[in-house]
Amino acid sequence: MLRPARADTAAPPSVEPFYGARQGGILTPSQSHTYLAVFDLNATQATQVAALLKLWTAAAARMAAGQPAGPPSADPNAPDGDSGDALGLPPSRLTLTFGFGPGLFVKDGKDRYGLASRRPEALADLPRFNGDQLLEARTGGDISVQACADDPQVAFHAVRQLSRLSYGMAALRWAQAGFSSSPPDESTGRNLMGFKDGTANPVARPTAGVKPDEVVWIGGEGPDWLRGGSYVVVRRIRISLEHWDRTDTEFQEQVIGRRKRSGAPLGSAAEFDPPDFAATDKDGNPLIPDDAHVRLANPANVGGASILRRGYSYNDGLSFTAERWPPWRQGMMYDAGLLFVAYQRDPRTGFIRIFEPMAKLDALNQFSTHVGSGLFAVPPGVAQGESIGQTLFDAA
Amino acid sequence: MLRPARADTAAPPSVEPFYGARQGGILTPSQSHTYLAVFDLNATQATQVAALLKLWTAAAARMAAGQPAGPPSADPNAPDGDSGDALGLPPSRLTLTFGFGPGLFVKDGKDRYGLASRRPEALADLPRFNGDQLLEARTGGDISVQACADDPQVAFHAVRQLSRLSYGMAALRWAQAGFSSSPPDESTGRNLMGFKDGTANPVARPTAGVKPDEVVWIGGEGPDWLRGGSYVVVRRIRISLEHWDRTDTEFQEQVIGRRKRSGAPLGSAAEFDPPDFAATDKDGNPLIPDDAHVRLANPANVGGASILRRGYSYNDGLSFTAERWPPWRQGMMYDAGLLFVAYQRDPRTGFIRIFEPMAKLDALNQFSTHVGSGLFAVPPGVAQGESIGQTLFDAA
Repeated sequence: MLRPARADTAAPPSVEPFYGARQGGILTPSQSHTYLAVFDLNATQATQVAALLKLWTAAAARMAAGQPAGPPSADPNAPDGDSGDALGLPPSRLTLTFGFGPGLFVKDGKDRYGLASRRPEALADLPRFNGDQLLEARTGGDISVQACADDPQVAFHAVRQLSRLSYGMAALRWAQAGFSSSPPDESTGRNLMGFKDGTANPVARPTAGVKPDEVVWIGGEGPDWLRGGSYVVVRRIRISLEHWDRTDTEFQEQVIGRRKRSGAPLGSAAEFDPPDFAATDKDGNPLIPDDAHVRLANPANVGGASILRRGYSYNDGLSFTAERWPPWRQGMMYDAGLLFVAYQRDPRTGFIRIFEPMAKLDALNQFSTHVGSGLFAVPPGVAQGESIGQTLFDAA
Repeated sequence: MLRPARADTAAPPSVEPFYGARQGGILTPSQSHTYLAVFDLNATQATQVAALLKLWTAAAARMAAGQPAGPPSADPNAPDGDSGDALGLPPSRLTLTFGFGPGLFVKDGKDRYGLASRRPEALADLPRFNGDQLLEARTGGDISVQACADDPQVAFHAVRQLSRLSYGMAALRWAQAGFSSSPPDESTGRNLMGFKDGTANPVARPTAGVKPDEVVWIGGEGPDWLRGGSYVVVRRIRISLEHWDRTDTEFQEQVIGRRKRSGAPLGSAAEFDPPDFAATDKDGNPLIPDDAHVRLANPANVGGASILRRGYSYNDGLSFTAERWPPWRQGMMYDAGLLFVAYQRDPRTGFIRIFEPMAKLDALNQFSTHVGSGLFAVPPGVAQGESIGQTLFDAA
């Protein structure tokens, strides 16, 4: 849904700049819809991949500006350069954010494109986390493209045009649509579990100790070609909402570590109060339980690790499944939950450090199942005339 | 996405009336999102079903007004009356539209609730149409609930609350989220195939010969309890967009029977020109091909049959499948398409009459596969203090 403060109100229509030192869709205020797609490359030559990225960059820039991906075909027997389904719709703050998976550098042990030596150490497959139930069909992939827009049709349209341009060179591996609904008063939005989500996200409160720029952008520590870029971790997290819905609010608050209505940390009065992890009740028990989600996720409790989350809810209807553990997860029904998307300078000191203990201990795990996953190196933004990934391919 | 002309601009927030002689969500200007769910009843007594409908009616009225479905629980060990995920979001023009499937009347040959004699003749399982590839898990069901709202989270929230109220009496059978994006200038929106969709829909042009009231509402021809109601046909139609995208625009226009950009019928100049089905080219071939979608769908060519469509696009990511026919449908990828929803006074002279020949002849069938289906009798609206379906159960 459009957020009033950011909505198209007059000409010019709402356009997010495509060109710039950083890619859009990372620190861009979150749009209300996303379509995230991951491609596998079929191209056999590095020059083909570079050519594809050049095509994609030009089409992305045009679409972000509200134009068709390509012109009408001169040949009446060839498809037009755009499928037409976004004609008449505003640009809707479309951003397209590209990422490179490990498979761009080395796949099945092969250095397909002569890029193996340029693979950053940090760009490896994520470790297997406790509880992971990853599906091959929703995991990994060579190139990620996340479209975000204030209109689901605009987001989907954008990825479809890139897919059309990739025939013979790349093929879609997995994709996920998502949405994010925010209150018109710009207070923190709620996730599908009914809790305010994002209170401690650095983008919401850059003054609260952690600056998003420092969390997200790769500096001198990274390879040259990746400076000014980032790493994105994507997880498709199914949530057993039907079982969550059967629990009482007090229990839910113990699981999360915050009050449901106000968002205040347990033992504190207001949403943005810092959680007091040392506070105890009269029996000496911590007010925020040891296994509460906010305790395990807090930078103070994971060696200062911090990430910038930019997730979306997803809702793919129903998909009945039975799982062995825990008992109350048997008979899962809603295929809905969180398309977790998080940016950081280094996944080893970001998501992996934060999530490794959480995967074992977080009380929330009783209701969540990670079924899809990806890690991608997000190259820097480009100026007009350049193309995404150019710094990588030029250096090769 | 919010449509400017209908958006929340000031207090009072955008609320669609729940109470009234007709149910909302039928002639209500289309909201931008939907979550359609179909329940199977487990209740063993008619009184239980009536009680469930009473609970649902009250909760639906509250949610449409922007209130929680129910109050906080007095018992700290019991769940609250609302899961909280729409707190802070505007009512978003939420409507909830209820329908009764054949299974409410007779199921597996049993008259479970003493309602068999009240089943309207028109309410039978739809016939098997040519090309149907219906999945049991997306077809049929006893009670349909369609939430429509200008926010996907609000629509999903509403159905979830009804599901919570149904524990032990009903269970979700299938569900589908969808979206509908409209240009801000209120011109006809485009579907995922890139064509203007809805040009000939009676709600868009009530003056164009067919009045929506006459198409939709059941009058004296129906059973007493259903007067002022309607019938809704739901079809989940997967579209092989990746193959459509490989075809040229001229071919696409022959399939649809309209120009892609303008929406004009072939041989005519403007979108709202009536199609000239008799027009031929210099060789005597019809300008609008015999198998063009608009020819087969036009009331003039199906004995005057007319329906009111109120569909949504859907996008559930990817789901790779291979089909035998036609060749170019092999390797379908996008699990996206049309959640077709159509209202009419009688499905036998509405959808069935229109679609039976289309299922055999429509050129569009090469790109579409019907994988889900439902037919439901939509009871009339209610006044405050009444409940949905009361006319049915009171009469029993």
